[in-house]
Amino acid sequence: MAAKPLGEFGRIARFFAPLALPGGLKLRDDVALIDGRRGEQYVLKADAIVEGIHFFANDPPADIARKLLRVNLSDLAAKGATPVGYLLSMALPRSHGDRWVAAFARGLAADQKKFHIGLFGGDSDATRGPVVLSLAAIGRVAKGRAMLRSGARVGDIVYVSGTLGDAALGLAAIKGQLGRLPPAVRRHLVRRYRVPEPRLALGRRLIGVAHASADISDGLVADLGHICDASCVGAIVEATRLPLSAAARHVVARAPRRIRAALTHGDDYELVFTAAPRTANRIATIARAAGIRVAAIGRVTAGRGVRVLGAEGRRMVLRRTGYRHF
Amino acid sequence: MAAKPLGEFGRIARFFAPLALPGGLKLRDDVALIDGRRGEQYVLKADAIVEGIHFFANDPPADIARKLLRVNLSDLAAKGATPVGYLLSMALPRSHGDRWVAAFARGLAADQKKFHIGLFGGDSDATRGPVVLSLAAIGRVAKGRAMLRSGARVGDIVYVSGTLGDAALGLAAIKGQLGRLPPAVRRHLVRRYRVPEPRLALGRRLIGVAHASADISDGLVADLGHICDASCVGAIVEATRLPLSAAARHVVARAPRRIRAALTHGDDYELVFTAAPRTANRIATIARAAGIRVAAIGRVTAGRGVRVLGAEGRRMVLRRTGYRHF
Repeated sequence: MAAKPLGEFGRIARFFAPLALPGGLKLRDDVALIDGRRGEQYVLKADAIVEGIHFFANDPPADIARKLLRVNLSDLAAKGATPVGYLLSMALPRSHGDRWVAAFARGLAADQKKFHIGLFGGDSDATRGPVVLSLAAIGRVAKGRAMLRSGARVGDIVYVSGTLGDAALGLAAIKGQLGRLPPAVRRHLVRRYRVPEPRLALGRRLIGVAHASADISDGLVADLGHICDASCVGAIVEATRLPLSAAARHVVARAPRRIRAALTHGDDYELVFTAAPRTANRIATIARAAGIRVAAIGRVTAGRGVRVLGAEGRRMVLRRTGYRHF
Repeated sequence: MAAKPLGEFGRIARFFAPLALPGGLKLRDDVALIDGRRGEQYVLKADAIVEGIHFFANDPPADIARKLLRVNLSDLAAKGATPVGYLLSMALPRSHGDRWVAAFARGLAADQKKFHIGLFGGDSDATRGPVVLSLAAIGRVAKGRAMLRSGARVGDIVYVSGTLGDAALGLAAIKGQLGRLPPAVRRHLVRRYRVPEPRLALGRRLIGVAHASADISDGLVADLGHICDASCVGAIVEATRLPLSAAARHVVARAPRRIRAALTHGDDYELVFTAAPRTANRIATIARAAGIRVAAIGRVTAGRGVRVLGAEGRRMVLRRTGYRHF
């Protein structure tokens, strides 16, 4: 009799967590920490993107490069780290010639300037399959100050940055699942799917204020769930408080079920973090300084797991909580 | 009219070297350096292996894991670094279930114990194509002491560790290109292809003695060529001095052309390094202490490029100098 598959997180807990160094934080965070220069730690993060999963074969190569870089910088942002540099591994089919690589490198160059980082090195290999791009990002943070998943406290407010659901709706738009959309709506959503915005300016300023922080790559409920698990707490989220862009509101007004894109779909790369209620004014000030909206969407509770309340406070039952690869 | 393709190294020089940080050493070395704890630097290396290129789909998963780890540790060894830990990115088809992942993790666990390292973190993604495994390794070295490619001096002796050509002959054996082989010969060669041995004990001891060092991943002539390019020198190698295993000698005795496996084929992961003639005795002592043979195979010259002399000192013309992915 075949055992039930462990799934992505089961595999990490069973097979890989026992292999982790202390700096690997039991693989319960999205990053690792090692000692750096005096008074500092390096924040390490490796994440890959795969053609057909995270991007499409005919996406502009510069956008693919920027997404690859930014999904990793987003994790550094969530920890409050300042990016330093990155290592790059590319597995490319031979059909991807110099022109593709040149455009890809131009995307990296543009974002290096924007985020004040550079390339440490890497390698490229030929593959007979889809493009697989892996990046290891290195940031730095004052020693002991990184915002981890594990610091949430009962009574904290749960906040998210920016707007949620855009990336998932952008993907649905590309797949033709949203019918006809006004061009500006479609453009906004697709852009958010293709080129996320790492919230570095916000993350840096939240150090010492937020108790726990993560980026939303798998989906709000899943990533807030990781914070809850690592902190041994639960959380309640009010769906009516989820911050939606005008474009997402346009879609949800016509198809209310699409609100779930904001709850359980990944790829938004906004920050979800918790902080004490008494720091609400300070967080509003920080958000203004960072130039990004921050919304209070719920609170941290005793117990375990994330509950989502819909209209009139009724609990929503979610078929899935976030993206899983396995 | 289409331009001539740049090739792997042309792409690095044209598109990626301009993106490199100072610690990226202009991408002319195999590693990057960043400041670490007081008096130390971290040595960073990322390398991927691809199913069908670096390993076969039906290879034991534990061997695949160990190869992935070791090809990266080999670069740390060449710099004289001590391994600390690694980040892992896996792109796996859904057909690779928990049993495959469990065996893969067991391979990592065995080598973690052997090399005193641990896992920092990573990620896994689903892919519809071949397995792509990327690893970023982190080592440490006393500040300013890492052995780079760029230190070779005219008059230096060129040395290699261990034996050359085994891995390429192992691959040829797997592909059925070597006819019938005695089982012990085949076993030795295939083992060398599947699970290389990073020369960490040797590399560490060569610090302060060797002027330049690299590991042989692309092929002796190619990797020594990288040292020559980075050092603005040339080199002469005497093919008759190449150290061959008993198994490789068995093959070459029957098919003399197969000597080229030792010259231009990669995957041996031995070290090639240069040092002043006056340190020959010291290098012999170091090799004994490290428990590995070291052979003098040539010398560093003025000029550029690597020349290979065959029997009776005649120059050998090589159709290719090493493995290239593009």
